[in-house]
Amino acid sequence: MLIKKEYLSQPQTENCTQNIFVKFLEYQTLSVDTKSLLLISRLRATLEWTDPDLAWNTSVYQFNEVILPVSKIWSPELHVTNGITTEMSHSSPDLLANSKGTVIHSVIINAQVICEVNLFNYPFASDKCPVAIQGWSRMGCGTNLVFGELKTVIASSGEWETGNATLERKRSDRNFILVPLSIKSTQPFITLVLPSILIVIADAVSFALPLGGGERNGFKVTLVLSFTMFLIILNDELPGDGECSPIIRFHFCCCLVILVVSMLWSMVMTRLFAEGRFGLFRQSKGPVSGNAGGGNAKEDEEVKAEVGVDVLGGVKEDGQILKKVVNFLEAIDGKTRESDRNQRFASKLDHIFFWFYLNSGIATLPTSNSVMVALTFSVLHRMF
Amino acid sequence: MLIKKEYLSQPQTENCTQNIFVKFLEYQTLSVDTKSLLLISRLRATLEWTDPDLAWNTSVYQFNEVILPVSKIWSPELHVTNGITTEMSHSSPDLLANSKGTVIHSVIINAQVICEVNLFNYPFASDKCPVAIQGWSRMGCGTNLVFGELKTVIASSGEWETGNATLERKRSDRNFILVPLSIKSTQPFITLVLPSILIVIADAVSFALPLGGGERNGFKVTLVLSFTMFLIILNDELPGDGECSPIIRFHFCCCLVILVVSMLWSMVMTRLFAEGRFGLFRQSKGPVSGNAGGGNAKEDEEVKAEVGVDVLGGVKEDGQILKKVVNFLEAIDGKTRESDRNQRFASKLDHIFFWFYLNSGIATLPTSNSVMVALTFSVLHRMF
Amino acid sequence: MLIKKEYLSQPQTENCTQNIFVKFLEYQTLSVDTKSLLLISRLRATLEWTDPDLAWNTSVYQFNEVILPVSKIWSPELHVTNGITTEMSHSSPDLLANSKGTVIHSVIINAQVICEVNLFNYPFASDKCPVAIQGWSRMGCGTNLVFGELKTVIASSGEWETGNATLERKRSDRNFILVPLSIKSTQPFITLVLPSILIVIADAVSFALPLGGGERNGFKVTLVLSFTMFLIILNDELPGDGECSPIIRFHFCCCLVILVVSMLWSMVMTRLFAEGRFGLFRQSKGPVSGNAGGGNAKEDEEVKAEVGVDVLGGVKEDGQILKKVVNFLEAIDGKTRESDRNQRFASKLDHIFFWFYLNSGIATLPTSNSVMVALTFSVLHRMF
Amino acid sequence: MLIKKEYLSQPQTENCTQNIFVKFLEYQTLSVDTKSLLLISRLRATLEWTDPDLAWNTSVYQFNEVILPVSKIWSPELHVTNGITTEMSHSSPDLLANSKGTVIHSVIINAQVICEVNLFNYPFASDKCPVAIQGWSRMGCGTNLVFGELKTVIASSGEWETGNATLERKRSDRNFILVPLSIKSTQPFITLVLPSILIVIADAVSFALPLGGGERNGFKVTLVLSFTMFLIILNDELPGDGECSPIIRFHFCCCLVILVVSMLWSMVMTRLFAEGRFGLFRQSKGPVSGNAGGGNAKEDEEVKAEVGVDVLGGVKEDGQILKKVVNFLEAIDGKTRESDRNQRFASKLDHIFFWFYLNSGIATLPTSNSVMVALTFSVLHRMF
Amino acid sequence: MLIKKEYLSQPQTENCTQNIFVKFLEYQTLSVDTKSLLLISRLRATLEWTDPDLAWNTSVYQFNEVILPVSKIWSPELHVTNGITTEMSHSSPDLLANSKGTVIHSVIINAQVICEVNLFNYPFASDKCPVAIQGWSRMGCGTNLVFGELKTVIASSGEWETGNATLERKRSDRNFILVPLSIKSTQPFITLVLPSILIVIADAVSFALPLGGGERNGFKVTLVLSFTMFLIILNDELPGDGECSPIIRFHFCCCLVILVVSMLWSMVMTRLFAEGRFGLFRQSKGPVSGNAGGGNAKEDEEVKAEVGVDVLGGVKEDGQILKKVVNFLEAIDGKTRESDRNQRFASKLDHIFFWFYLNSGIATLPTSNSVMVALTFSVLHRMF
Repeated sequence: MLIKKEYLSQPQTENCTQNIFVKFLEYQTLSVDTKSLLLISRLRATLEWTDPDLAWNTSVYQFNEVILPVSKIWSPELHVTNGITTEMSHSSPDLLANSKGTVIHSVIINAQVICEVNLFNYPFASDKCPVAIQGWSRMGCGTNLVFGELKTVIASSGEWETGNATLERKRSDRNFILVPLSIKSTQPFITLVLPSILIVIADAVSFALPLGGGERNGFKVTLVLSFTMFLIILNDELPGDGECSPIIRFHFCCCLVILVVSMLWSMVMTRLFAEGRFGLFRQSKGPVSGNAGGGNAKEDEEVKAEVGVDVLGGVKEDGQILKKVVNFLEAIDGKTRESDRNQRFASKLDHIFFWFYLNSGIATLPTSNSVMVALTFSVLHRMF
Repeated sequence: MLIKKEYLSQPQTENCTQNIFVKFLEYQTLSVDTKSLLLISRLRATLEWTDPDLAWNTSVYQFNEVILPVSKIWSPELHVTNGITTEMSHSSPDLLANSKGTVIHSVIINAQVICEVNLFNYPFASDKCPVAIQGWSRMGCGTNLVFGELKTVIASSGEWETGNATLERKRSDRNFILVPLSIKSTQPFITLVLPSILIVIADAVSFALPLGGGERNGFKVTLVLSFTMFLIILNDELPGDGECSPIIRFHFCCCLVILVVSMLWSMVMTRLFAEGRFGLFRQSKGPVSGNAGGGNAKEDEEVKAEVGVDVLGGVKEDGQILKKVVNFLEAIDGKTRESDRNQRFASKLDHIFFWFYLNSGIATLPTSNSVMVALTFSVLHRMF
Repeated sequence: MLIKKEYLSQPQTENCTQNIFVKFLEYQTLSVDTKSLLLISRLRATLEWTDPDLAWNTSVYQFNEVILPVSKIWSPELHVTNGITTEMSHSSPDLLANSKGTVIHSVIINAQVICEVNLFNYPFASDKCPVAIQGWSRMGCGTNLVFGELKTVIASSGEWETGNATLERKRSDRNFILVPLSIKSTQPFITLVLPSILIVIADAVSFALPLGGGERNGFKVTLVLSFTMFLIILNDELPGDGECSPIIRFHFCCCLVILVVSMLWSMVMTRLFAEGRFGLFRQSKGPVSGNAGGGNAKEDEEVKAEVGVDVLGGVKEDGQILKKVVNFLEAIDGKTRESDRNQRFASKLDHIFFWFYLNSGIATLPTSNSVMVALTFSVLHRMF
Repeated sequence: MLIKKEYLSQPQTENCTQNIFVKFLEYQTLSVDTKSLLLISRLRATLEWTDPDLAWNTSVYQFNEVILPVSKIWSPELHVTNGITTEMSHSSPDLLANSKGTVIHSVIINAQVICEVNLFNYPFASDKCPVAIQGWSRMGCGTNLVFGELKTVIASSGEWETGNATLERKRSDRNFILVPLSIKSTQPFITLVLPSILIVIADAVSFALPLGGGERNGFKVTLVLSFTMFLIILNDELPGDGECSPIIRFHFCCCLVILVVSMLWSMVMTRLFAEGRFGLFRQSKGPVSGNAGGGNAKEDEEVKAEVGVDVLGGVKEDGQILKKVVNFLEAIDGKTRESDRNQRFASKLDHIFFWFYLNSGIATLPTSNSVMVALTFSVLHRMF
Repeated sequence: MLIKKEYLSQPQTENCTQNIFVKFLEYQTLSVDTKSLLLISRLRATLEWTDPDLAWNTSVYQFNEVILPVSKIWSPELHVTNGITTEMSHSSPDLLANSKGTVIHSVIINAQVICEVNLFNYPFASDKCPVAIQGWSRMGCGTNLVFGELKTVIASSGEWETGNATLERKRSDRNFILVPLSIKSTQPFITLVLPSILIVIADAVSFALPLGGGERNGFKVTLVLSFTMFLIILNDELPGDGECSPIIRFHFCCCLVILVVSMLWSMVMTRLFAEGRFGLFRQSKGPVSGNAGGGNAKEDEEVKAEVGVDVLGGVKEDGQILKKVVNFLEAIDGKTRESDRNQRFASKLDHIFFWFYLNSGIATLPTSNSVMVALTFSVLHRMF
């Protein structure tokens, strides 16, 4: 019997095509690498084929079934043809052959398939990936796969969720397992979308902060830098842009630009609030301060003149002194009124911009969010 | 003797089932990957089986035991059937056979098992992972495992702690090692829970900061951004959400929303404090400032009128000047009173919100913390 | 037949050179490591060669084609000679031989090639990488490759995009596949260039913030530190400098220095604004405050003298008291005027610097950006 | 001769135990993984054993020594039994045998040993790790190791420093290499301890900042968040807590709580400073402001009454006007005095807390530091 | 011929030493791991040796050269003896043998060598690493290497640059390739040294910020925390300290301490500026405020007394009221003068410290920088 086995440990070469019946195929997604769009999957297949050289006469040798070491007989090889790596390993070192030459064997195929998942509406993306499974075949010679049942192990670990894979047969020698993948949107929603919405809302509400105190600009620059950080995190997680880039990236860029514009506007408004002018050189203030200076100079003269005044002009002098006090107070009052006018003007501009900002924000945010959720963009997978 | 060994180096095929006695099984958890819920474990097994072809007559060959190279004789193969990778290696290149054909051998199995640990109450999570160990068997042919002693190497390195594994036999060909795993909660508590509690407490106490100075908003935005950072750290450590998502994630989201609401409220209160109005356009202030302007205009008239007044009306003039001083001071006083009224109103609203915040905080924090600790959620492990 | 195959499982040694016809060559870039300038690529080749020892007489053995195990016959080995690792694996364990001795086989070559891509204009860089493919050959003996069709799999995953590779034949035993690579500039543009431009713009606009309030310096130091962070990110992504370093690094350094100079200037201006002097010791203020002290001392004397004055000099005394009030107010006024003069001077200097800054910025930014986009710098690849 | 070698290429089976003389053993620590407490080490051993079947008669075959390929004869296998991975490789494909059957061979063993290093006093931790080296042996059969010289390669790369390893023999079949390991404390000291001490000192000195300006709270929250960052870094570097957790973790937690308490106290003090009350509702201020309101109302009345007063009562009126001015100034003065009293009270509380803080800090810091340096905690290594 | 080859596939054992001529040796540095001081290098060697058993009579067998599979004949093995891993692989599965028994073959050696590079003057460090190359040899038996040409592939990828390696022969059986390595200093200069210099300069210039506004302390704490971040980055990149630690680490620690001292001084100065005292308890202010209280009390009395005064004493009363106004103003003036004195004192101390700081900074920075560049420190490499 042992000698017989030794003899049979050679490959099959009968009429150049061997039918392999894949009785049972179990698909499992091990992991999906979002960054490089790599689908790492594992297939367990139970193969059954007939090898006439392995048949024996049960009258001579009375056993019905025999266990043979897999390394001594020929066994077919399955490939994932669109994978960048594909490794077939035997799930056991022994296989079972019965007296009619029918051999049953289990194999495990680990494959890495580049699958250009459509990430257009990113945190809600879902797509189908083809995994092409095939035997070895060249110019009519080789193996021909006949598929039976396909089972999907739905292990939802990782960032992606695998649905029920289906088997599709394109050509006689091309068999695809279509694997539906969908991102679990909870985590990217919490990590990316929620903070970004909160930052934009905080930026909108930060218009409530007073222009004068210097708080608003510090607040806004903190928000902008945090948002930049989220943009970097987003780019670390998403792949480079292929045919259809995820819309969330453009959405984030839009938000960033809006935040920056709002920050710059706030800074300009702060200057307007404080000095009442947009311009950089003090052309308008020049005369004002000149007047003030002139007024001061006159006051100075009066003060100097007053030194020479006789103490006798008491009541009159008293009146003049009081007038000076009043002048002083009125100067303060005037300044206050002027800055008040500036501030009211700046506040008005600020409010106008706020309404503009709010409207554009209301217009933009839900639009892009709904686009993110609803829109689909058809990507034609290259089918090998 | 050597020739005899060579002869015996073929697999066994007697009555299609071979009993393998696993005398000793040592389980060791090498590491647990919390992110992808992967349990990497190592099993050391001492196997004993009887191979009649290896028996010899001690009268012919006088040795009782003989050392054979493992590559020359058949040896059984054990698998971890629910593992995504499973590798059996021989712990030594030699094995021991005695004259009755009993062979003793040691093997090491390294396996990676996807174990959907229940992370519902995350930093205090504990669960049991099944590791299915099995020989090769197909349609009545193959090997049958009989288990002896199971020992667990409790090496508490890493984030998880392994308890005493127990052996359970579901079917004749299905044997599970149930591995109890529990997270060491000290580290995630210090890294995640403690800072989050401190941030929420700091946010509550930050209501003590005065509304006016602009400090409170800067303080609160710093806290919010730090909390966002912790949320990102948490999401990096936890796996994507399966059937039962860790409750700590929702707890963190709740806290974030509370912090953001508290920050937004604080910003609105700051405006109310400063200007006494919620509205954005100065509809209420309009008349007030108009009045003020009118008053000022009247003052201006008076001032101008005064210029023309004769110096003779000294005492009367003095009185008028003093009246102006009083008017000025009263205007300041009135403004102060008005802003004081605003501030008192804003402070009251602030206090009301604070009590609301404190109560909801007191209601939320311990609830969710106790839920985190106490509640359990039964996850049915798929048993293969 | 089986014996015949066994016999043939020896390498070929006829007239010392074997022609290998590479019927079909498929090139695929798996990934490009920008940091270490490593090109990881995969080649699938269909080889055809004639092995006279494998020919048989169809009259004796009536099959036209036969499937042979690849491990039993000799097969040629292809190398990527300029790769640091190169591995050839058989795409199937069987190959096809016909009766004339012509053998058809498929091989897969995985290779890592160090390719000094020209990163001079980094986010818009594109270059060609040579992948030298060759058989084994020494002193006239060996294999000679004859190439057929070359196909490129354009999978645009990752940071780089692969164009259509072309085959070039330098010497008879040197065959290059020239792989055009170009960076997808969207992602580094969003992550690096956009934030840097926004930071520089924000820094320019931050001159609108008032000098006095202390806001501007805090704003600028935040910008500088963020920019430093981007510089570190850039350096993490780019490789060390070879012959032609990416110009974006020098651009970032320039921007950093500009930001720092602007920050330092702003700090010095703040002091000038507050105290009106550049110097560190109060040499100019010394006499002023001395005068003030003297004035105060005189006032003190007057106050003390006044205590002894009789209450009878009522009106006169009244006048003196009023004078003191006026003196006090004038002192405040004088201080205000002085600080006003300082502030106007500081603001003027500030504006001059701003214009200087703006002009240099306008001159620098577009220049370097256009240089980044347009300029090319020829790198001579070492061709092996 | 060649045939003879072929013949001898079988394992040895004489009297069931083989003495292996380990002439020379060189231990080298490749790296220590502090996070998972993994010791990766390499052993080079020169083995010498006698294989009677390899002896020959020098009269027949005149060579004294012969070089044999290691794959053709039996060679012993050494294991690191407490390692999670242990791989023995031959340092050369050839070995030397002399005519008496003595074989000399060199092997290299790479092993990963889980070594629960005592990290109680972390940055100054040092401990001994056992590496159990053993041959294959079962029930009296197998190999027996006799050790010669042990040399340690002291390569101080990495975070840990290896001392001189010593050989200890527990049982006849258990041989340990005790490897003394000590952390190089400079790097964690600079990265962790120094910044933490600086932060605590900065927090203590930050009591010098004035309570009123709002600076102190911002300063303290920055320190707290930085400290949290260091706590996270520490937890990333240290392993999970086993039997004896590193004391530095508790020290850091203590410091964090102290910093947070100091921050919260500072915030409460700020409110006390600003408003003079701890309470949240203005129960004490209520009447005060009521009084003030009443006073204002009275003033209002007076002002209104004054309108009706005849201009004739000039001097008297003047006096009343002046009284109002005085009332106004006195109200300001009173407020100032009240707030001054509040501030003095707050400052006193602040100082008391500071002394309490300083004393507890002085008590805590050196204590925990000295504990970190000096204390030891005996960990009993499980010896296999 | 084929049989002949089979026969020859045994190792050589003639007179116990075999001369191997290494015709061509190509050294290439693949990467240098600065953190663990690991040099990963690749050697390509063309070997030539004479195997008398492979010679044949050209009259019998008319070919001059023959291609043999490398697995069927003996081939020498080269090692990198001071490497922690060393792997020799055949560059092709075939080799060339001529009729005189001379065999030509190419091998590739990948080795990882721990090379304690002298990092004393880190960003400008350069050193030589020995790579010991050797054949197998034991007690006079083995292989003897004779070296020919050595070529270095200067691929400047990564952080390090490799110069021209030279071959040195210490003993007959020890051959070193001395590999000169030098760090490309541009990147660490930009990432580490430039920001650190900018931070120290910014810290020096931050003395220009006014003490009072609270800006300076916030600015300085930001700088200190950024610097701490750079210290952590530095420690992540540099290895642990061996014999001669990189001086840049101590330089950074010095800078950190200087920054912290400057920050602490600034905080103390802020208090001095605001309150005029160093002490913590208000012992000096106590009497002052007591006096003020007394003065206020007296004023209160006067006010109360005034109530009872008859309205008839008009003018006198007027005078008293005015006196009170003057008293009020003088009290403000006095406070201002006192705080002014404090501020001048604080500013002076501040300036003195600034000059001290500037001088020490000027003394320290260039010194340590020049030390970093110029100094060398001889490290004796252990030569195996």
